[in-house]
Amino acid sequence: MKEAKEFLIECYEKNLHLKRYPLEDWQSALEKGKLQLSSFRGKYFFRLTKEFKSFQLGTVFGINFFIPGYPSIPRIFFIETGIKRYLEYPFFAEEKIEGYNIRLVKVEDEIFTFTRRGFVCPFAYDRYLDFLPKLPDFFERFPKMIVCAELAGPENPFVSEYPPQVKEDICFFVFDFYDTEKEKFLPAKEKIKLLEEYNSPHPEIHGPLDPNRDYEQIRNIVLRYNKEGREGLVFKPDGGGRRVKYATPYSNLADLKVVFPYLGEVDPNFVSLRLIRLLIGIHEFPELKEEVLSEVGKYMFEDALKNLNLHSPLHEVFRLRFKDEANFLALLFHFKQTRVNIEILEKRWEGSYLRVAIKKVYPKATQFWRSKLEGWGEVD
Amino acid sequence: MKEAKEFLIECYEKNLHLKRYPLEDWQSALEKGKLQLSSFRGKYFFRLTKEFKSFQLGTVFGINFFIPGYPSIPRIFFIETGIKRYLEYPFFAEEKIEGYNIRLVKVEDEIFTFTRRGFVCPFAYDRYLDFLPKLPDFFERFPKMIVCAELAGPENPFVSEYPPQVKEDICFFVFDFYDTEKEKFLPAKEKIKLLEEYNSPHPEIHGPLDPNRDYEQIRNIVLRYNKEGREGLVFKPDGGGRRVKYATPYSNLADLKVVFPYLGEVDPNFVSLRLIRLLIGIHEFPELKEEVLSEVGKYMFEDALKNLNLHSPLHEVFRLRFKDEANFLALLFHFKQTRVNIEILEKRWEGSYLRVAIKKVYPKATQFWRSKLEGWGEVD
Repeated sequence: MKEAKEFLIECYEKNLHLKRYPLEDWQSALEKGKLQLSSFRGKYFFRLTKEFKSFQLGTVFGINFFIPGYPSIPRIFFIETGIKRYLEYPFFAEEKIEGYNIRLVKVEDEIFTFTRRGFVCPFAYDRYLDFLPKLPDFFERFPKMIVCAELAGPENPFVSEYPPQVKEDICFFVFDFYDTEKEKFLPAKEKIKLLEEYNSPHPEIHGPLDPNRDYEQIRNIVLRYNKEGREGLVFKPDGGGRRVKYATPYSNLADLKVVFPYLGEVDPNFVSLRLIRLLIGIHEFPELKEEVLSEVGKYMFEDALKNLNLHSPLHEVFRLRFKDEANFLALLFHFKQTRVNIEILEKRWEGSYLRVAIKKVYPKATQFWRSKLEGWGEVD
Repeated sequence: MKEAKEFLIECYEKNLHLKRYPLEDWQSALEKGKLQLSSFRGKYFFRLTKEFKSFQLGTVFGINFFIPGYPSIPRIFFIETGIKRYLEYPFFAEEKIEGYNIRLVKVEDEIFTFTRRGFVCPFAYDRYLDFLPKLPDFFERFPKMIVCAELAGPENPFVSEYPPQVKEDICFFVFDFYDTEKEKFLPAKEKIKLLEEYNSPHPEIHGPLDPNRDYEQIRNIVLRYNKEGREGLVFKPDGGGRRVKYATPYSNLADLKVVFPYLGEVDPNFVSLRLIRLLIGIHEFPELKEEVLSEVGKYMFEDALKNLNLHSPLHEVFRLRFKDEANFLALLFHFKQTRVNIEILEKRWEGSYLRVAIKKVYPKATQFWRSKLEGWGEVD
């Protein structure tokens, strides 16, 4: 393992992006654990585990690269007033895909796949070429670009929800190109051109839109997405400027369904936030009120009830396809590092893919429900 | 106003209960705000705003009296295992009344009515004689006893839920006698005898019960309470020992209904806790599952939807009956002290009662919902 302190000094000397702040500040961040040394396939880099000055959580850098974290996007609860507050003509409404955020970047001679938190995701690393076969060509032409994609589908290692258009396996949906030299996202027109040129799967893009004139159109998209089981929309100004996102009532219901059995692993706010979004959602979409009122109980309780038991620990099964077993091992190592409790249920080659099934065991959620079933009391 | 520091020294010198800890510890509690000087009708006393060593929050004392706080009772989620874990034969199951806890105590020449947090409640002070007319006689005989009662009904100043058996105004339900000399609650038999002798309204008391043999009986009580809209049960060993409480599924639904419009004023945990209790509740009472699943949405959202608006601040109206206007003024002063925003809507004498209607305005809840309706975004 590299010596983190020395490597930080080396990065600071050679990487201009770091000079925005004195070396001592970076060193203090390292001591506090805000900055952590990571490696993947023999390449070393630092990642920010928290916001640090003007840099986002998930920012990663080495000696000769610097990849800003993907900015968090505020969520609006009410579309009609929200789009007027944050956007003006021309803006775009892009489908928000339920999956996890991957930044694809050329790091020296290789393409790396960074998660939101700045780890390299070995699963994304294994599979991106299946869905983005022209990405190496793209990086030949645009070596300083960050390709932001949502990795989504029923067979991913992290997220149990997935978009209805991915029936099996996964897909990479490219939703942004970030130009690290100009320090901004590409505007819609250029983005759409590149998406088409490189045949990249991408979320639906609606626009250009006007916040006053096009509310009805957006409303209809949300109603359709809600019916189809899609997550929501991200509203993006053309080029720079503030973005906001919105989740369909369906997506909030689905979140409740998947999280309820595993309460104890998540922040209790998770539940009330979804309910608050739902409430404002049916205020704006009264046509959904009756259905939400009658269904929300089932979404919250039905699966959770089935999972309540005193015998086996709570768990979830994730199925995955790999091309290279080394990446599967790297994923297992990642789970070990991040203290996720894993059991391998299945592992077999089928054609050129290693098909695996892993079981994540949730000790906190197990204990959370079990102590209640066993009759333990709690002071409110 | 008395000088708190001097008064504390005076109390310490004369009140033996305080000597359990060194004076310096009490003084440090005073400095930290754990101990606060209060007064009512010219009598001064200290109240504990937090737990302090072996004393509960809400403990109050002066020079010649010391009233321990009412102990918090752990809540069980699952009755069958919970009663076996905490109780043995003979124990009692008492109806838990939805209202607020008042400790009635003889302080020198007067009966005072302390809330859970150790304030004197001017409303309870005004009304206790209407419901407990023999209380002065009781205190002649038992001057060192604490009478613990739930003040409940549609016309109380604090709690918008109330038990179905109180159709109008309020009632005091006596549920415990605490002997400050023996430092324990009276056992069931003595308690029931005194309740009858002094004609005190009281919660239903079931027992003696056995945790193994009588589960079915308790189950049937809970089902009846659930149907009648009652809050729950408190399980008490006969005399000393651990107590636990349980809330009916109905009571959790009702809590959600009354709190949802005012989210932003309460801890977000409030919602998830009720849902967790509901889930375990219908696991133990599967006969209630269908109803809870189909109704929980209405309980959470229907009133909250009606309250959503951009125009008027969120508020609740409380109606009250007083015998002495001075006590109404003292209540208004209490709200001022505790920073509750009040408007008087109505105030008129009807027979020997001053009938008032006050409006509590909830600025935090108003802002909470309004900012969302106005389209403001929030980072999760």
